[in-house]
Amino acid sequence: MLFLNETAIKNAVSMKDVIDAIDEAYHVYESNHFHMPTRMQVVDKDNTLLLMPCITNNAIGTKLVTSFPNNTKHPVLHGLVILNDHENGEIRALLDGSFLTGFRTGAIGGSAVRHLAKADAAKLAIIGTGVQGLYQAIAACTERPITDIYLYNRSIDRLPAFIESLKPWLAKEIQIHSMESADTAIEYADIIITSTTSKVPVLPENPDLLKNKLIIGIGSFQPTMREFPDVLYRLVDHLFVDTNDAIIESGDIAVPIENGWITNDFIQTMSSQIISKSNITLQRDKTIVFKSTGMALFDVVVANLIYQQALRKGVGIPLN
Amino acid sequence: MLFLNETAIKNAVSMKDVIDAIDEAYHVYESNHFHMPTRMQVVDKDNTLLLMPCITNNAIGTKLVTSFPNNTKHPVLHGLVILNDHENGEIRALLDGSFLTGFRTGAIGGSAVRHLAKADAAKLAIIGTGVQGLYQAIAACTERPITDIYLYNRSIDRLPAFIESLKPWLAKEIQIHSMESADTAIEYADIIITSTTSKVPVLPENPDLLKNKLIIGIGSFQPTMREFPDVLYRLVDHLFVDTNDAIIESGDIAVPIENGWITNDFIQTMSSQIISKSNITLQRDKTIVFKSTGMALFDVVVANLIYQQALRKGVGIPLN
Repeated sequence: MLFLNETAIKNAVSMKDVIDAIDEAYHVYESNHFHMPTRMQVVDKDNTLLLMPCITNNAIGTKLVTSFPNNTKHPVLHGLVILNDHENGEIRALLDGSFLTGFRTGAIGGSAVRHLAKADAAKLAIIGTGVQGLYQAIAACTERPITDIYLYNRSIDRLPAFIESLKPWLAKEIQIHSMESADTAIEYADIIITSTTSKVPVLPENPDLLKNKLIIGIGSFQPTMREFPDVLYRLVDHLFVDTNDAIIESGDIAVPIENGWITNDFIQTMSSQIISKSNITLQRDKTIVFKSTGMALFDVVVANLIYQQALRKGVGIPLN
Repeated sequence: MLFLNETAIKNAVSMKDVIDAIDEAYHVYESNHFHMPTRMQVVDKDNTLLLMPCITNNAIGTKLVTSFPNNTKHPVLHGLVILNDHENGEIRALLDGSFLTGFRTGAIGGSAVRHLAKADAAKLAIIGTGVQGLYQAIAACTERPITDIYLYNRSIDRLPAFIESLKPWLAKEIQIHSMESADTAIEYADIIITSTTSKVPVLPENPDLLKNKLIIGIGSFQPTMREFPDVLYRLVDHLFVDTNDAIIESGDIAVPIENGWITNDFIQTMSSQIISKSNITLQRDKTIVFKSTGMALFDVVVANLIYQQALRKGVGIPLN
């Protein structure tokens, strides 16, 4: 049994490896060869314990997350991923679930960039510079020749620390710009990624700033949360989700359906797109949108890759 | 975060400590101040992943168990207990769930011996000499001045290894006897503990061998499993369960109710007995029965005790 903390995981896999694993997870999703029940929630006042298991043909994974929204001195979320052997049930690895979640969510965005962004996309906007925004930026730069990153965050004082965390991951030539509004951050962007916990749209109701772009939404994971503006649903040509659960889980999909701005059959899964390899051509003045809410299948496929690579490279702390 | 394997757990706590923790868990059970949803099962062909969370006022615990019934070279069950901080959700400890389960199940039997056996009980019979039987024997000897242990197992070839495992835990004076039948094993016993996976009764249909004794059933945890004979329900004066779930989970309770041998209101919880401290007097030619099926509440209370003691004693492997 291996314990794999953040350092060990970073030593075991690159962001590109994890984006490959996300693509592999989409193949498993499309094949239907997995067991992934609805996650279990144990609620204790404001706090929640979440258990998210998934069994594939290769591994058994369980993500355990505690959410303590009133934490001030500690992170709100704490996580662990437990990986069991598919052949005999033995525990193979215990992984830092908080880091794994951020890194694999970055890779989900990275996979969308890989399959949906134009080949020469060079300008990236990140709206929301928390830990999720960090791995989104890293993943996008892994997949496209990004020259400029435009950052916007509601609290501007968080930007310097974010830039310090981001720089070591990037090529030196990449220019990082701190912007004072979402409007100016997205103006020249080819790819826009939103990663906030907002309940109201964080992108402007301005078609000129949204069209001819790839827009990736990471934040809204509850029906009451929204990042995308109303007008976006008039521009969108292709709307992808990482899992069908996103349709009910995310306010960025549920609200537009409720209001009749889009219909259910307009929504495509990313997995069907990857399998079909159909050509996506962005129509003039239109927009491509990808919305992610995540699922345990990603965690188990990524955790298994990390474990296999860790074994090969001899990283991690052996237990027992 | 501490990793606590079997050796660390043994260094952190004694069997008596864990029996005290079981009694504490009964107080929590009676107070109703805990959240313990029905366990989650993910089934993949013959194999099962079980997730058993419980939140008390002091700790958050999750037991994860894989059951691979076709394993021949590896144990059928593998387990891990994850302990999170009740105040901020941080992961405090990862504990060997297989050892913890065996040890705490021993302590559940030990608690029953503490509260229900006569003070001078000296002779103990163990029917079923697997890993559960081992910790049952250790726990009973912790609570009463046992002089003789009578062992019976369907496969007699397992007895020598069992005795080798048991001896280091016991005072040298205690005599261990290998018996060739359940009848001879229980004949002189004051306390009988059954810990098998049998689907048919393992104790004889002979009132003379059952009366005036404390009988503890550990094995039957499914409605199709039984260890107790039909005649026992005519002798039983007090019937205790560790949790109300035992009434539907165990064939040793469900079958007698179905057949009208006992009624629901005859069954008492061990917790109510411990709280009320009411005097149990064994009527002449009658029997006291305790039936355990276990629950996650025991795991979280015991895991929290182990963690606190491990911190105090400086045992366990620190992670991160």
